[in-house]
Amino acid sequence: MEIKVHGMGMSTCCARVLLCLEEKGLDYEVVPLDLTAGAHKQQPHLSLNPFGQIPAFEDGNVTLFESRAINRYLARKYEAAGTDLLRSGSLVESAVVDTWMEVEAHQFNGPIYKIIRQMIVNPIYGLPIVEEVVEAAAQNLGKVLDVYEERLGTHKYLAGENYTMADLNHIPYLVYMMRTDRAIIVNSRPRVKAWWEDISSRPATLKVIESMMPA
Amino acid sequence: MEIKVHGMGMSTCCARVLLCLEEKGLDYEVVPLDLTAGAHKQQPHLSLNPFGQIPAFEDGNVTLFESRAINRYLARKYEAAGTDLLRSGSLVESAVVDTWMEVEAHQFNGPIYKIIRQMIVNPIYGLPIVEEVVEAAAQNLGKVLDVYEERLGTHKYLAGENYTMADLNHIPYLVYMMRTDRAIIVNSRPRVKAWWEDISSRPATLKVIESMMPA
Repeated sequence: MEIKVHGMGMSTCCARVLLCLEEKGLDYEVVPLDLTAGAHKQQPHLSLNPFGQIPAFEDGNVTLFESRAINRYLARKYEAAGTDLLRSGSLVESAVVDTWMEVEAHQFNGPIYKIIRQMIVNPIYGLPIVEEVVEAAAQNLGKVLDVYEERLGTHKYLAGENYTMADLNHIPYLVYMMRTDRAIIVNSRPRVKAWWEDISSRPATLKVIESMMPA
Repeated sequence: MEIKVHGMGMSTCCARVLLCLEEKGLDYEVVPLDLTAGAHKQQPHLSLNPFGQIPAFEDGNVTLFESRAINRYLARKYEAAGTDLLRSGSLVESAVVDTWMEVEAHQFNGPIYKIIRQMIVNPIYGLPIVEEVVEAAAQNLGKVLDVYEERLGTHKYLAGENYTMADLNHIPYLVYMMRTDRAIIVNSRPRVKAWWEDISSRPATLKVIESMMPA
């Protein structure tokens, strides 16, 4: 297989790449790593991702890491296939996609990561859930989603009338948060809720959610 | 003036945009906001940046926010002017630029922000510097820069042999950190130190540093 994703569907950053591959209708192979044995902190993985994280990515001779950069590469290389995720044909449309991709990275990712870390990851490692951390992050995430609620009053998707990478990059953490009682942060905002129901029911998303939640 | 940056040079996110404008040799106007009066949390600023942050950006009819997205727009619209910051002519080169831009956003920005927040911002607001927070962030930043030290052993700049947006986006926080005793995190790593000396002495950088440090 030409395209290889080193990691596993359960990982939100791997899932982000799989979402892009599925939207583009590409064939790929997921190459699992034994994280419990620390395979991501050793060679040969470190030569693919020097930060010792997943995913790492190969497309023939091209090796990359950082999920959002991999997704940009896929969207550009396979621009004509499947969903047009970057709207590169228009300078202004692509700038608006970029803006909301940065919003995901710099406004949304921080607080939702804290919620997932506490509520989903800590129990796996036998660590306690610190409720004050969850609550503070939930408040911050709520303020961010208030802006989304307003935005989605005038646009169908974050970057305009089309589903783009700006929406897609949000999905992995939301998949997990929506399975906790903090789903209320989304469900209490009608337009954000409708947006989530839309983007989480896309065929590509449904397929990736399956790999995030192995039976 | 067609291009307007709403904010001020002292703000690291505004400075990031000014660095790009200077590398491109473009004319622009900085439109100051009275942050002490909360102008960024009110109209008309909120219609330019719904998160109530700076910068906001105008280029004729185009309005954008999020510094890294503004920089992508400028690099694409004015691709032929000044420094080629995204290497868009090559699919692979541009993917490597994207990768190291994501490294800046997701590995570097978090810990250095904490250092600047504690050491530079807290004193302005009469808040104490929490040394344990600074120390933990310094340790994390050091681990990130260990990877840079290795990378800069085989490449002149983060994304290869050319100065790109991947380097540029790092500059604003480093300008401030290099004026504290935590400069040691850079200066103790010879290749990172040489890289910093190179990118901080570019004419565009020198000009923007002046606006970050008003006399």
